[in-house]
Order: sequence, then C-alpha cells, then structure tokens
Amino acid sequence: MSLVVQKYGGSSLADADSIKRVARRIVDTRKAGNRVCVVVSAMGDTTDELLDLAGAVSPSPPEREMDMLLTAGERMSMALVSMAIANLGDSARSYTGSQAGVITDDVHGKARIIDVTPGRIQEALDGGHIVIVAGFQGVSQDTKEITTLGRGGSDTTAVALAAALEADVCEIYTDVDGIFTADPRIVPSARKIDRISNEEMQEMAASGAKVLMLRCVEYARRFNLPIHVRSSFSHREGTWVYEPDEGETVEAPIIAGVAHDRSEAKLTVVGVKDSPGKAAQIFQAIADAEINIDMIVQNISAADTGRTDVSFTLPKSDGQKGVKVLQAAKEAIGFDSLQYDDQVGKLSLIGSGMRSHPGVSATLFQALADAGINIEMISSSEIRVSVVTRDDQLDDAVRAVHTAFGLDTSEGEAVVYGGTGR
Amino acid sequence: MSLVVQKYGGSSLADADSIKRVARRIVDTRKAGNRVCVVVSAMGDTTDELLDLAGAVSPSPPEREMDMLLTAGERMSMALVSMAIANLGDSARSYTGSQAGVITDDVHGKARIIDVTPGRIQEALDGGHIVIVAGFQGVSQDTKEITTLGRGGSDTTAVALAAALEADVCEIYTDVDGIFTADPRIVPSARKIDRISNEEMQEMAASGAKVLMLRCVEYARRFNLPIHVRSSFSHREGTWVYEPDEGETVEAPIIAGVAHDRSEAKLTVVGVKDSPGKAAQIFQAIADAEINIDMIVQNISAADTGRTDVSFTLPKSDGQKGVKVLQAAKEAIGFDSLQYDDQVGKLSLIGSGMRSHPGVSATLFQALADAGINIEMISSSEIRVSVVTRDDQLDDAVRAVHTAFGLDTSEGEAVVYGGTGR
Repeated sequence: MSLVVQKYGGSSLADADSIKRVARRIVDTRKAGNRVCVVVSAMGDTTDELLDLAGAVSPSPPEREMDMLLTAGERMSMALVSMAIANLGDSARSYTGSQAGVITDDVHGKARIIDVTPGRIQEALDGGHIVIVAGFQGVSQDTKEITTLGRGGSDTTAVALAAALEADVCEIYTDVDGIFTADPRIVPSARKIDRISNEEMQEMAASGAKVLMLRCVEYARRFNLPIHVRSSFSHREGTWVYEPDEGETVEAPIIAGVAHDRSEAKLTVVGVKDSPGKAAQIFQAIADAEINIDMIVQNISAADTGRTDVSFTLPKSDGQKGVKVLQAAKEAIGFDSLQYDDQVGKLSLIGSGMRSHPGVSATLFQALADAGINIEMISSSEIRVSVVTRDDQLDDAVRAVHTAFGLDTSEGEAVVYGGTGR
Repeated sequence: MSLVVQKYGGSSLADADSIKRVARRIVDTRKAGNRVCVVVSAMGDTTDELLDLAGAVSPSPPEREMDMLLTAGERMSMALVSMAIANLGDSARSYTGSQAGVITDDVHGKARIIDVTPGRIQEALDGGHIVIVAGFQGVSQDTKEITTLGRGGSDTTAVALAAALEADVCEIYTDVDGIFTADPRIVPSARKIDRISNEEMQEMAASGAKVLMLRCVEYARRFNLPIHVRSSFSHREGTWVYEPDEGETVEAPIIAGVAHDRSEAKLTVVGVKDSPGKAAQIFQAIADAEINIDMIVQNISAADTGRTDVSFTLPKSDGQKGVKVLQAAKEAIGFDSLQYDDQVGKLSLIGSGMRSHPGVSATLFQALADAGINIEMISSSEIRVSVVTRDDQLDDAVRAVHTAFGLDTSEGEAVVYGGTGR
C-alpha cells in the first residue's frame, strides 16, 4: 500500500464547501488503496484576520506570541478537515505541528525544521486513520516553544513529513494546475510543465516562481522525494518535480521557464575607491545586518578618478535597513553617495539545457533589445541567466523572452485563483 | 509578594479595545507588587463562530476534533492579551492548557482536571513574566489528546491553577459586579452579595446561578482557596467566596439568595405499580443512559388501583433520551404512560442560616401562595429549599420570594452585559 502525503493550501480551504471538497478528494485517495497523511494551511483569509487582530492590539507584537496566534489558523482548518472526513464515513485524526513531531530551531516567525519525529503520526496511520497535520508550525528543540516556519512553510512541512515517513510521493495541492513556463497572469500563453528537475525547480523558486518555495524544493532534493504540484480544483495531472538519475539523458527542452521577481530593490554605492578590500567592507556591513543580497555588479573604475560604483540587489523589505547600515559606515568605507531604487524587476531564464547550449544569453539579450527593454544588471549561474529591468517593463520583458524561446502555447491552459502562500 | 490568579471571560475580551483594557488591568495588578497568572477564555463571539464552521462541515463532528477546533479560541485570545501587555512595556508569555500542565481525563468536550503540573508556569513567573494561560482546555493523562472542560471550564482552570500554584487569591472577572441575591435581569432590586460561604455558593451554582459553575466552586472548596468574583468593567469590590473557619459564628443573613433554573424538564411515569423495586428499575434505566436527575417526587398510591405516579426532573437536553429509554423499558417496568413537560422552572432558596431557623419553608410557600403561584414539586437539603413551578410563573415567583425574605435593595446596583459562560 502506498503512502501519500498531500498538502492543501489556504486557497483550497477557503470556506466550508471547499473543505468538504478537499475531504472528498482525501477520502477518494484513501479508497484508491493508499495510506494518506495530509498537511493543511490556514483557511483562506484566517491569517490576514489574525494579523489584523494583532495589529489592533499592538504595533509590534512579540514574535513568540505572534507564532502562538498564527498557529491557531492551521489548528482550525485541520480540525474542520477531519470533521468533514468523518462526515464521509472515514476516520481522521488531526495533529498540531508539535504533536506531529516537527522539531525546529527557535527562530520565531521563520524557524527551520531540524528534525521530524513522527511517532504519533505513524501510529495513527498504522491504526488505519487518515492523518491531518497542521502545516507551517513546529516546536523548538531546546525551549519547547511553538514556532512558525515562514512563507511556504506548509509545503516544507509536507515535504519534511513525507521524507520522515518515507512516503512514495508528496502532492502539493494549490490553486493552479502546476508549475508554468511563466506566470500565467503575465503570460496567458504560458504552458504547464509536465516534469521539471529539482535543480531547475530550485532555480525557478529562487528566482521568484511562487508556486513552490525554495526551502521546500531543497528539502525534497536532499531526500530524493518526488513532488507532484497540482490543482485541488481539477483532476488533471500537474507538474512532477523529480531528481533525474545519474547520467540520465536529458530529453527535456533547453529552457524550463521564465521566472520573475518584484520583491527586490537595487542599491548603488556611488564613488567607491577602487582599492582592495572595499567590496568586502560593503558586504560585511550588509551581512552583519543579516540582509541577504542577490546580484552584484561592479563596473571598472573611471580612469580619471580611480573610483567605481558597486550595485547590488536586496529584498525591498530590507531596503531601508541596507541604506542605514551603509550610511553609518560611510566614513569607514569611503564613498560619495548611495542610490536606492525600488522600481526594478528581475527576469530569470532557467533550464538545465543551457549547459550544453551556448548562445542562450545572446538570444535573451536580443529578445529584450528587440522589445526596447534596457538591461540594468546581469548575473548568471550554470543553468540560469537573470537580468534586472525597470519595474514597468518587466511584464513586457517576460512575454518577449517567453516567445523568443518558443515556450508559448496556442491555448491558454492556466487558471489562477490567488492564494496566501502559507 | 502575593501571587494573584485572574480569570477573564469572553465578554471581557470581546474585541481589541477590550483586550487592551484587560491588559492595562493586568499590568496594574503587577505594578501593585503582585506576581500575576491570568487565565483567559475565547474572545466574545469566537466560540460561536467556530461552532458555526463545524456545523457547516459536519452535522455531528467527532468530539476529539471539536476539542481541537474550539481550543483555537483561547489560543488566539491568550496571544492577543500577551501582545497587548508587551505593548504596555511589561513582559507576558502565553501557554496553552497542555503547556501549563492542565492534565485531564480523556472525556472530550467535558473533561475533568485530574492534576495540574505547572512547572513551566512557575518557571515563567520566577523569570519575572506575567503568565497568560488558555482556559477551558487541557491534555489527557494517558492519551496526550487535547481536551476541553465544558461549561465554566475557564473558571475551573483558574481555580485549579491557583490551587497548584498556591496562589493567595483567584479573581474571576466577569461582566457583572459579583454574585447577586437573585438574577438582576429578573429582580432589578437584587443586592450584590459581599461574602458568601463555599457551601452556599455550591448550592447556588447547583441551583442555576450562572456566574460561577459548580465544579469550580467545588474545586476551590477542596483547596480552601478564596475566590473573588468581580467585574472587569469597574473597580468595585465584588463577591468573596470563602470557607468559614471551623466554628465561626455566622453573622451572615439567614438567606444568601434566590437562584432559578430553566434548564430542566419534568418527566412523569404514570401508573406505576406500587411494589418494591419499581423506582429502582426506573432510575437504573435513566442512570444507564448517563442522565443526571435532580428532584424526585413519588405520590402515595391510589387505594383503588395500587398504582402511583413517579415524577422527576432532568436536563431538557436529555429529555428525549429519557423518554426513549423509559419507553423501551415500559414492559419490564410496567406503567401506563409517560408525561414529558418542559414548560417548568425551578426556584431555589439558599442560606446556611436555614439550619438554625425553622419556618423558612413556611414563609417560602406562603409567599408563593400569596403571589398565586402553584407549586408542582418540592425538594430540600439542609441549606436549600427548591420548588418547581410553571415556566411562565417562575420570574414572578423569584421576585415574590426575594421580597418576602427582605433581600430587596432600594437602589438597583446591578449591571448586566451578557456573557458566554466559558
């Protein structure tokens, strides 16, 4: 008998009817002869409502208490899904992250799973029950405090539980039909991807594709666990995220997809003296502030001044902090000024076929040039090329590149409902 | 430094502003030099909303899952109260019933506390934190399942924690100024009681007075813990529920108060053969169905038939079950018919002074007769006399008796807001 781990997001659990629909699907999976462990997010609007309540009592609530509050969301949905399953005549038992053995570090609000000890889950499965587990939450190893995992946390819970239970597959149910070659809201002709390698999916997630979070893909890759991303609103096959066998001949297309990201800003340090150690000083200051940076560009220095400009991208949410720490280190580093620009967007082209196909970058740059789009920064890895453009040109850029690489389909397959990302 | 346990009910935590008001009161208590442990119910309407959700996915949800769902309510309020306290510059930590060491039996929906092991609470108090605990919930000793305590469960949590922590006092905050000589909604001239003995309070609670639940009073009595019932909407002194010292001269008035109860129905078994063992058969059938009965009346048998009628009261919620089990045992017991009547009400007069004052019953019956109210059943204990009347005469009966025993005050002190009873 196969063991299937399923995860349902908030948009699939928006109201009582949605919950009943999901319960039916879970019971069907069990009737098909599987053992089933289900991870649920909070219902559609619950998290926003809880955040509103928190905001109404305190402008800056302690993170420990925020985690206590938010974890009520999954608790409600897991109990309701269990009830709906019982109403269909099957037996379900719900467990919190803590009860399910999801052990994390103690960083409230964005804890990392460090172990999963699913003894109670295994026992309940062995007892013939369908098991429902609260996603997005765990308990800290040392302090036994309730933690939350941050964005995409429920996906990570599902993959981590699937790995610990040695499940045959982890199905991530969402409100779209799978992973697309580009965001269908921007590119209506985007195609659903049938199969994508873990490596490509990692780059897609890291580059802004929102259907699966990076941490979850990393986890699946580490445990060689196949993920099936699919819609809870249809019975169509979705996208399989898999680990190719060693030496497997890649018959896949050169390009997997085009991702985009509007969450980053560009910070330029103007007039830095071009001497050894200056870049190190800049990025040490940024690292000390716990800011993750993405792309870095340094031009050659002007011959007359011996000074150069260093630009890098960082999350918009850390933008003000970044400006602040560099401003504070202005004398120590020695530069003229800072330019902060949050009207930028990033486009990334991803495909493991790039390794054996030079010329991909050239085609990309030509497509952007033809569309009249200026490139502000460039970076690349072995299977990815990313460019920064003006924010208001990003959508055009994505469409142009998608077409240039022959990814368009004639019929729009994509259906988008909008979700919470938890 | 004194240790104060406070409990705030749902009507004191109706919205963000109420929560901020409660947080202020908690911080003031701490600033006055006390260590403070607070037990909270779910916010005003939360429980009803959760029940609605459950009802929308299943007509008869499993009790285990119902407990999972409902316990989300206190989780939310405890986190929000902690946040509001932090916002006032003090440090608060919230704990679920399970984390607080509230150990219960495994009867979902109406579990009983069998032990309290407040190690984490003690540690947090020692660490200088204000502690907020979710009321109404615990964890079962053997199965480690989340349980709820049923009606009045948060009060019981507060008293049990206060006993385990050896607190100096347990303050029960509610939406009325304390315990009244009668329900102020029915008797506007009812007086707030300043002090009432545990024994009297137990009889009041058992007779329908809703401010404190019976189980909570029993618990306080067992541990000799003083309870102070007071309003969270004012700073007035409320009612102290205390254990009189052995041999203490009771200077208290003869009568503590008049309680009433509309939650019971009357079931009459008509034409029972008046032979030994018949009553035993009837009440064994009722007991087997786990129905708690209250008053029992058996008339002398009619001389011509040798048959009699047996009447008893039982919770309205068990009424149909009671009829069903007796109907099923009709042949075995041997009776003519059943009469079920849920249009009844019960009035109880309570006072430890009754012990030394005969004539209380006579005054009671005379007051009812003067008001034209017919008595259908009578029962009494050492410090209580109860009568059953028609439902629509009960309010008049309560007023008449309240006046007859000189309990009326000239000015109406009572302010009533309405609460959830959790």
